[in-house]
Amino acid sequence: MRKTVLTGIKPTGEIHLGNYIGAIKPALELARVQEYKAAYFVADYHGMTKVHNPEEFRHLSYGIAATWLALGLDPEKVIFYRQSDVPEIFELNWILSCFSSKGLMNRAHAYKAMVDQNKQSNNDKDFGVNMGLFNYPILMAADILMFKTEVVPVGKDQIQHVEIARDIAESFNNNYGETFLLPEYQIQEETGVLPGLDGRKMSKSYQNTIPLFVEPKKLQQLINKIKTDSLPPEAPKDPHTSSVYFLYKEFATEAEALRMKEQYLKGIGWGEAKKELFTVMNKFLAEPREKYNELMSSPEMIDSILKEGAEKARSITVPFLQEIKSKIGFHVS
Amino acid sequence: MRKTVLTGIKPTGEIHLGNYIGAIKPALELARVQEYKAAYFVADYHGMTKVHNPEEFRHLSYGIAATWLALGLDPEKVIFYRQSDVPEIFELNWILSCFSSKGLMNRAHAYKAMVDQNKQSNNDKDFGVNMGLFNYPILMAADILMFKTEVVPVGKDQIQHVEIARDIAESFNNNYGETFLLPEYQIQEETGVLPGLDGRKMSKSYQNTIPLFVEPKKLQQLINKIKTDSLPPEAPKDPHTSSVYFLYKEFATEAEALRMKEQYLKGIGWGEAKKELFTVMNKFLAEPREKYNELMSSPEMIDSILKEGAEKARSITVPFLQEIKSKIGFHVS
Repeated sequence: MRKTVLTGIKPTGEIHLGNYIGAIKPALELARVQEYKAAYFVADYHGMTKVHNPEEFRHLSYGIAATWLALGLDPEKVIFYRQSDVPEIFELNWILSCFSSKGLMNRAHAYKAMVDQNKQSNNDKDFGVNMGLFNYPILMAADILMFKTEVVPVGKDQIQHVEIARDIAESFNNNYGETFLLPEYQIQEETGVLPGLDGRKMSKSYQNTIPLFVEPKKLQQLINKIKTDSLPPEAPKDPHTSSVYFLYKEFATEAEALRMKEQYLKGIGWGEAKKELFTVMNKFLAEPREKYNELMSSPEMIDSILKEGAEKARSITVPFLQEIKSKIGFHVS
Repeated sequence: MRKTVLTGIKPTGEIHLGNYIGAIKPALELARVQEYKAAYFVADYHGMTKVHNPEEFRHLSYGIAATWLALGLDPEKVIFYRQSDVPEIFELNWILSCFSSKGLMNRAHAYKAMVDQNKQSNNDKDFGVNMGLFNYPILMAADILMFKTEVVPVGKDQIQHVEIARDIAESFNNNYGETFLLPEYQIQEETGVLPGLDGRKMSKSYQNTIPLFVEPKKLQQLINKIKTDSLPPEAPKDPHTSSVYFLYKEFATEAEALRMKEQYLKGIGWGEAKKELFTVMNKFLAEPREKYNELMSSPEMIDSILKEGAEKARSITVPFLQEIKSKIGFHVS
């Protein structure tokens, strides 16, 4: 039996290089591993906790689907679906909430970070916190448990989500007997933290991102904005502390990366290094970008792929929810 | 256009006289009023916040449905359904959670009562609180708003639930345009608080209830246990402070009630008064009790009625959820 590996991306911003290198690229690699059955989804209902503008929400949701497909996700091999097309997840979400202690949610990192921020701004601790945000870890547990997921690839800051899903699953299983698989997290190989334009971690909250599918001219402009030191062109440079090199090696072949490393050590001007970076990035991105634009201008193509994905997803979720409900004592037809 | 009136009962205990007089009897009367379209439901997913024993849960859920039917609810005229048969409610529940501030939940009476109790027992404030209990007012808002409910009959202690549903609805409407009707509460005519066996309010938490459909012999025993004062038989008695009289007038005709009042004022022994109470109650309950027992021994009869009810309910909820989702920016097929 292949193990189910599951991951979702929420539509709360344009997909940027950080998302690609940190989540999408490793997930696409995992999907190619024979021992895994991949379930990847557009976490649109998670996005609703933050995005309340319909046009933006629609654009971002399609954008995530188009990004996966443009980068080579094969919908024949991956269960690829929109969360909002699978209603069983929301019924399970309520069931799990009855087995989630409120204390567990009080201790969730994302909520605690909001409380800390409110304290620093002298606001009420729950200022601006909606219940979607507070309940977030339960919906995530429903996403994971609904598909009998065994492996969840995570960054270090997301380990707690998988631990919470395990806690809730155990609490349910203890009461009704073995029902849910306990998921394991798989920490993604550390590529280091991808630096943004300003040298801090690339993140939409810092507005220092390079969106994945900007047009070549804009891409070149953004690359030119990457912060560097002010060493003269001929001075040797440390590739390991350079954002420009960091990005270069993600898109170059191994041979290219090695050659570039040598050039850094010998001395290369930042202008030249950035030009080389643009070249490899643009070479890699040209085809996916074209595919992305094509999909975004024909959303019905995306809809038809996601519809098939939802059918595959629901062939798992519908019978499993029936099984869960009958254990609780519901009438199921 | 008829106004929708909605009420649900959760399966957390045997239906007792307090439920009947405080909620079921007035709801059945409302359902007969021409200007109302009634939607009454078994709030089974609300019950899950407390009952985690499958056998008990199943028995109590069927018990509520059988009670309504035994007391004369006409499923041809009322939309009569099980909450768990209407998945759209749970998707809406998540949508509404993204428009419910956490502060609103912190101030919900039921949650605050649990916190107070924990403080008195020197426990952590959230000890024993699961997220189903904390989220309860949001699911209730989903129940109400999903059916475009205009009128919610409530006891005084439930006014806040309707106010919370209005708050959430307004918050959504302000963002996406008029979508939800703002429900009004209708405080049920004060019959006064129904006293239990010990003279305190009849409530399953005090274990002082008289279940509605106990067998005659048991009913007589329970009536005999009702607390009275120790006045001698011949002493005049105040009907307005007597639990026995309170119950009598709920089941007797007006003429019978008037005659009994006179007997109290002249003087009647408690034994005699209780015998009379048993007589009118048993006369009223005999037929519903028989119907109840019949239904409980053929749950498939209940299932078939509720299945039709769920179809009627979903003819409202399915298109309305599509409308709501398309306003948010979801793809709807």
